[in-house]
Amino acid sequence: MSSSYDGRYQSQSQYAPSAPQQPPYSSYYNTSTSNVPPPSNSSANYYYANVSSSGYSSFPPGTPQDVINSFQMVDRDRSGFIDERELQQALSSGFHRFNLRTIRLLMFLFKNPHQPLTVGPKEFAALWSCLGHWRGIFERYDKDRSGKIDPLELRDALYGIGYAVPGSVLQLLLSKYGDGSGRRVELGFDSFVECGMIIKGLTDKFKEKDTRYTGSATLSYDAFMTMVLPFLVSYD
Amino acid sequence: MSSSYDGRYQSQSQYAPSAPQQPPYSSYYNTSTSNVPPPSNSSANYYYANVSSSGYSSFPPGTPQDVINSFQMVDRDRSGFIDERELQQALSSGFHRFNLRTIRLLMFLFKNPHQPLTVGPKEFAALWSCLGHWRGIFERYDKDRSGKIDPLELRDALYGIGYAVPGSVLQLLLSKYGDGSGRRVELGFDSFVECGMIIKGLTDKFKEKDTRYTGSATLSYDAFMTMVLPFLVSYD
Repeated sequence: MSSSYDGRYQSQSQYAPSAPQQPPYSSYYNTSTSNVPPPSNSSANYYYANVSSSGYSSFPPGTPQDVINSFQMVDRDRSGFIDERELQQALSSGFHRFNLRTIRLLMFLFKNPHQPLTVGPKEFAALWSCLGHWRGIFERYDKDRSGKIDPLELRDALYGIGYAVPGSVLQLLLSKYGDGSGRRVELGFDSFVECGMIIKGLTDKFKEKDTRYTGSATLSYDAFMTMVLPFLVSYD
Repeated sequence: MSSSYDGRYQSQSQYAPSAPQQPPYSSYYNTSTSNVPPPSNSSANYYYANVSSSGYSSFPPGTPQDVINSFQMVDRDRSGFIDERELQQALSSGFHRFNLRTIRLLMFLFKNPHQPLTVGPKEFAALWSCLGHWRGIFERYDKDRSGKIDPLELRDALYGIGYAVPGSVLQLLLSKYGDGSGRRVELGFDSFVECGMIIKGLTDKFKEKDTRYTGSATLSYDAFMTMVLPFLVSYD
């Protein structure tokens, strides 16, 4: 069975059918116990034990030490939570110095529902794992190793993880990343993650309302606004 | 007949029924010939006459001179188009120095479809007129003259122009404008315009798919993404 969102789009699309099969994207939020070391009584989990008993999250068992170190490095007050600038700094040690807009989108997608403007150890570990997947995808589809993904590579990358996005939709998304000169858009890892997260986030929201995968959904006005607004604006 | 989007929401809402009646918001994009001076052969229209014959827009007849001056002041190369930073500067003379995020949203909403990253005289005049309406609304609902609109005032203001936005939706929107401290959010004119334009823009898009005003609409995946993406991201 295809992991694409909608076979109808897939069959109409021009997407490379040879794109390697990937697991359905929804698994990315539930990744990680299979490929990580077995649980250990690391200092980090001990360190956050008190926090955890207060209702805060702790690192999942088996979280790699470098992930824990990256979090602890920026959580200077040992509150167990980091804000957007701390997250930006923490991720720059393992991935990339993302711009704040991407950071806010990541925070929104991985936030602790009880502490919406901060990220705790559990959310940080999930985010790190997810970004590792995105990096793998980026490297796989950046075939010329330019460090940039072009529109065709982005389309193939999204297709490869199960999102057969119509060309017109992708064009609309990419039009926002141009410099106004009309030159061909190329995305660095930062913009690639942002585009991918937006497509994934909105498509997943839509799928929740289209449980039979018909390619269309009936939405109330409230539901529509509630689905969309979180992606729209960021606090200054 | 009410100008609210959906009588169902209106009757369920807690919105002040005494909110003054305003014309339906859709008229705001079609404003302007009634309250402006009669057409004149101003130097500006002459100035742009050649531009217009090349396919560019010119100022609509009767555009106030201060609007024309504001445009010309920043269009130094007399190209007949201004970019985002020039628009920011031009609007600061009459309204406010909007942040670039708001400027990009305004450009998206008022853009010339053939020149998507620039604004010409016609679009500039429409934008100026629309901002004048928003300023009037802001001043009317900023009852304590604090220069800030609080959530209740925003709700009343949107209701007053025909948008009975559910409280939960408004809360979601406003959550993005907090500073993370949990303090009550207050919006300056900049954020007020951004919030208002987002609500208006998305609601109008939804209404296009809900022509019978039932409060729900059936959307294809493509239509959903195409409706939403333009509001989502801005070019860097």
